[in-house]
Amino acid sequence: MTQAKHSSTITEMVNVTFQKSIGTGGECVGTVPAGSTLLQAAIAAGVHLQSACGGKGTCGKCRVILSPEDRTGPLPEEKKFLRDELSANGVVLACKRVVESDMDVFLIEQKDVFDRKTQLGQENKVYELAPLVRKHFVCISVPSTSDQRSDWERLVAELPKSETPLRFNRRIAAKLPRILREASFQVTVVTAGDELLAVEPGDTSAGSYGLAIDIGTTTVVVYLINIVEGRIVARGALTNPQQGAGADVLSRIAYAADHPAGLNQLQTQVVGGLNQIISDLCQEERIKPEEIYQAVVVGNTTMSHLFLGIDPTYLAPAPFIPGFRQSVTVKASELGLRILSDGAVTVLPIVAGYVGSDTVGVMLSGQADQLEGNHLLVDIGTNGEIVLVGKGRILSCSTAAGPAFEGAGIKHGMRAADGAIERVKITEDIELGIIGKENEKVRGICGSGLIDAVSEMHRAGIIDSGGRMISSEDDLEKLPTSLRERVLYENGSREFVLAWKEESAAGENITITQKDIRGLQLAKGAVLAGVRILLSHLGLKTEDLDMIHLAGAFGNYISKESALGIGLLPQVSLDKIQSIGNAAGNGAQMALLSTDAMERSNRLARDAEHIELSTEKIFQDEFLESLALGQSY
Amino acid sequence: MTQAKHSSTITEMVNVTFQKSIGTGGECVGTVPAGSTLLQAAIAAGVHLQSACGGKGTCGKCRVILSPEDRTGPLPEEKKFLRDELSANGVVLACKRVVESDMDVFLIEQKDVFDRKTQLGQENKVYELAPLVRKHFVCISVPSTSDQRSDWERLVAELPKSETPLRFNRRIAAKLPRILREASFQVTVVTAGDELLAVEPGDTSAGSYGLAIDIGTTTVVVYLINIVEGRIVARGALTNPQQGAGADVLSRIAYAADHPAGLNQLQTQVVGGLNQIISDLCQEERIKPEEIYQAVVVGNTTMSHLFLGIDPTYLAPAPFIPGFRQSVTVKASELGLRILSDGAVTVLPIVAGYVGSDTVGVMLSGQADQLEGNHLLVDIGTNGEIVLVGKGRILSCSTAAGPAFEGAGIKHGMRAADGAIERVKITEDIELGIIGKENEKVRGICGSGLIDAVSEMHRAGIIDSGGRMISSEDDLEKLPTSLRERVLYENGSREFVLAWKEESAAGENITITQKDIRGLQLAKGAVLAGVRILLSHLGLKTEDLDMIHLAGAFGNYISKESALGIGLLPQVSLDKIQSIGNAAGNGAQMALLSTDAMERSNRLARDAEHIELSTEKIFQDEFLESLALGQSY
Repeated sequence: MTQAKHSSTITEMVNVTFQKSIGTGGECVGTVPAGSTLLQAAIAAGVHLQSACGGKGTCGKCRVILSPEDRTGPLPEEKKFLRDELSANGVVLACKRVVESDMDVFLIEQKDVFDRKTQLGQENKVYELAPLVRKHFVCISVPSTSDQRSDWERLVAELPKSETPLRFNRRIAAKLPRILREASFQVTVVTAGDELLAVEPGDTSAGSYGLAIDIGTTTVVVYLINIVEGRIVARGALTNPQQGAGADVLSRIAYAADHPAGLNQLQTQVVGGLNQIISDLCQEERIKPEEIYQAVVVGNTTMSHLFLGIDPTYLAPAPFIPGFRQSVTVKASELGLRILSDGAVTVLPIVAGYVGSDTVGVMLSGQADQLEGNHLLVDIGTNGEIVLVGKGRILSCSTAAGPAFEGAGIKHGMRAADGAIERVKITEDIELGIIGKENEKVRGICGSGLIDAVSEMHRAGIIDSGGRMISSEDDLEKLPTSLRERVLYENGSREFVLAWKEESAAGENITITQKDIRGLQLAKGAVLAGVRILLSHLGLKTEDLDMIHLAGAFGNYISKESALGIGLLPQVSLDKIQSIGNAAGNGAQMALLSTDAMERSNRLARDAEHIELSTEKIFQDEFLESLALGQSY
Repeated sequence: MTQAKHSSTITEMVNVTFQKSIGTGGECVGTVPAGSTLLQAAIAAGVHLQSACGGKGTCGKCRVILSPEDRTGPLPEEKKFLRDELSANGVVLACKRVVESDMDVFLIEQKDVFDRKTQLGQENKVYELAPLVRKHFVCISVPSTSDQRSDWERLVAELPKSETPLRFNRRIAAKLPRILREASFQVTVVTAGDELLAVEPGDTSAGSYGLAIDIGTTTVVVYLINIVEGRIVARGALTNPQQGAGADVLSRIAYAADHPAGLNQLQTQVVGGLNQIISDLCQEERIKPEEIYQAVVVGNTTMSHLFLGIDPTYLAPAPFIPGFRQSVTVKASELGLRILSDGAVTVLPIVAGYVGSDTVGVMLSGQADQLEGNHLLVDIGTNGEIVLVGKGRILSCSTAAGPAFEGAGIKHGMRAADGAIERVKITEDIELGIIGKENEKVRGICGSGLIDAVSEMHRAGIIDSGGRMISSEDDLEKLPTSLRERVLYENGSREFVLAWKEESAAGENITITQKDIRGLQLAKGAVLAGVRILLSHLGLKTEDLDMIHLAGAFGNYISKESALGIGLLPQVSLDKIQSIGNAAGNGAQMALLSTDAMERSNRLARDAEHIELSTEKIFQDEFLESLALGQSY
């Protein structure tokens, strides 16, 4: 007899109830083994806390409020991120707090960027309206002993030759005999290419809807589109519910790779978020989910993999290999997307591990294959994707810009939501533009505000070209008093106060730290280095550029002057920079409304050359040269 | 306030435990609302009782044995079917007995035809071995930063051009990155046409299996086939588990149409039966269900519909319209068939509402499109399907022969199982051939025995050509004593004793009744009328026929002399009648092993003309003329 070397104990399960703020109602319960963190409980409950570091305790974002009876004072790790007042009010970091028994936790309410971001969709008039999904109202010949063809055959016989042969659809064939007879053989047949999507009684050809979906690492946006009229009916957006697994794609990939059901969980989360938007849109517009026949999806390569439930593990390490790159179409039911269960869900093609279908959407929307001259298309988010069109070629690359542009990793960084500083102008004193209502209290700084602030601080002499904040008494003396007072020395490092605690919602100074500036330098340096390398591949110089197209919400809100001021973009004249709106989402809309555009997206993805920056010998040099603030070469 | 006009009561649920005979072990429990019949409980338990009438109480087949404590004596409706001894031993009709509380019930053991029927499969050498399913062992180029193609692309690139483009398979793509790396990029790719079925680590190309499945109304047969070698590995069979819904296709259609979940139930039942056989075969042969990549299925039109879960309602009334006729391929998982979940399940095409893929299998196996001269192919079961080849055309029809040939609707009829009389020879006395071991007691009469008996009784003068059993004393006197004693007059009608109760397992005389003879006349008359009408359509006479091919188990076991003797077939010489074995199943095997054969089955189904007998003006005349016993014209 051998003796067991270890004893196994049965782990007790505990329930954590997450309460929304008083007044708004609603609660979610997460059941986890005792000893789990509150962040794990939040994930189990489907509650989406911000978590830029994926639970490592280094971002300080995953804040929740404990019930009075559970408060025990701040942990040492929390003191770095939470002021004493916050701790006194029960605010803790969910990733640091362990659950031992059932408890109630309150969520911190947060208004978000949604309304703002979704304003950017533009109706597209470039392609002729010719969606993949078609409706045919047909009157089918009634069976007789002299015409004993099957129901399937007599249905198909009424369709245009271009729609046949139609692939057999068992689920529809199963009910077809009854549908035809109950509808007196007058039905509307819905097809998508060679797939039969639905057979509906009577003439329903007037109503037909599709979705264009843009899955961002941070935000998911859904456009509900009337595909008969080619018109956006409504839009909705939500924070990507995968936040619990980290704010950036590498954290998400690690989560999927390291947790047994991680991939499935992330897939379910993002589809769950989309379903919530779809359900809201359907209620508002009084349409049935079954009237939505198609969805076209764009996203970065990781988001595309997670949406389809495809293992993203090998996207993370070199050589960054995706599971698939081609355009992929699956049935909605296979993904759990709550539109018509046989609805055609198409994810646009991918160029490379870090140049995803969102960039293909940008190329499609920006008509990269039709542009004359030399053009840069830049989509800046956590990653910066850069496309250079010129000399009959299309080059693309991706730079790991880091989360600074999204306000993450920045001491007072936040997304572009109410209370965010989005504009900074430094004269004798400081003028701030705050998102939200008049007299909105300041809550933090979003990406465009950060770029403005650093550009202005550099222009005002508060930061040198190397990015160092002034420290010598001599240099400080040169600043106007109102500015000089704003340069603080705290915790062994300089900070610059944008808003004093009296103006702040949380009662704390909102500052730019030396570390924040370094973060921004790294981010913008990566983008600029990418641009420089693409230019050098085509033998082009800055002055050869005819236009820089800025895609995405960021491109809409960034100040061109500040972008040039910090040296984020090569030094062109202001009239050569234009925003092209939410180009990724527009590309998805185009592909939804036009099979031509869909086909062109495949050609673009196939023809675009990918430059892997990590293997470029000159990248390191270019990167170091690109770090300097001020006008780039 | 309005008052409820009816009160609803909560129905109590009761459990009925069905015990197999002592010694064999095993029990199944059916849970049903109190007040249900034992037959309903048997269906709920997945226990397959014979039930030719579908629970109407008119066939007397659904016999079970009550526990001693539950026995209450026979019901009036049971006395018609059950001798006193049986009733005394607790035998009851399950459709007549109502369950009010939990009870135990014993099943009557019945050896079945399986071993016998499945001997008929023949290895097929007609087509070159070229199955749809192919395995390719490939060594995939390892990714690098200079080759960043996706895993899907690098897999597809190694396949022969003929196999591409391959349709995207999300389930496989989801795991592909890990599979490739764990297998060091050496994998076996399994395809079926443009579908990817599996990606297996290492070289598995030596083992590859498929199923040929013949779904009969009465019996389902599964052939497990090594598709690399083109060899039948094993066979299994089972009573079609849909028996609870009736013995014939019309009862099954009515059941599917009239019960809310009836179609789903019948679909699940037949697939459940197949899964049982598959599981047994896999265990015996030590292969995994995932090594079975494909199944080719034949069956009559109703069975094909029920197997695929397609509404069969409108097959029953004129004009007998099927839901589909084309060959249909679906994934195994969609049907619940437990082979590889992405396995390709193909149902061969259908000619008409009552000329199904089983007949197409017969045509394929009999090479109907290659035959020279004029040939009849006849497959007789509950329905008789007849194919006439001649003058460059292929005609087909179906006749509702009724269940007499299967031993149903016959007083002592039974399937061709142990104890069945399968041969009858009348000389001075009677010689019987009994299926089973030597000295096997007689249990009943199967189809071939019935045809022998009636043919011999007619030859011996016990029945006249009109089918009437002799009754006058004068006629009786002419018979030898031993025969004369066998003509009884019971319950107002004549019976002829084939086996005295001393020879019978149940201790009762085994007889042919006047009603049995009428049943056989109707059955054989329908077949002969069909043959005559097809001949007349091609302007052919009996003497123009070069061969009559008898398909199916019946064709193997029927005595050619007796078939001619009762006038089942047109009067050709004996050497012009040949059995072609289980031709439907052989056809399925051919289609499994050869894409050529699969394609030919589609051509055969498309080219075969269907003659709808019910609209033939001359059918009534031909039918009445065909009823006579004795040699036909």
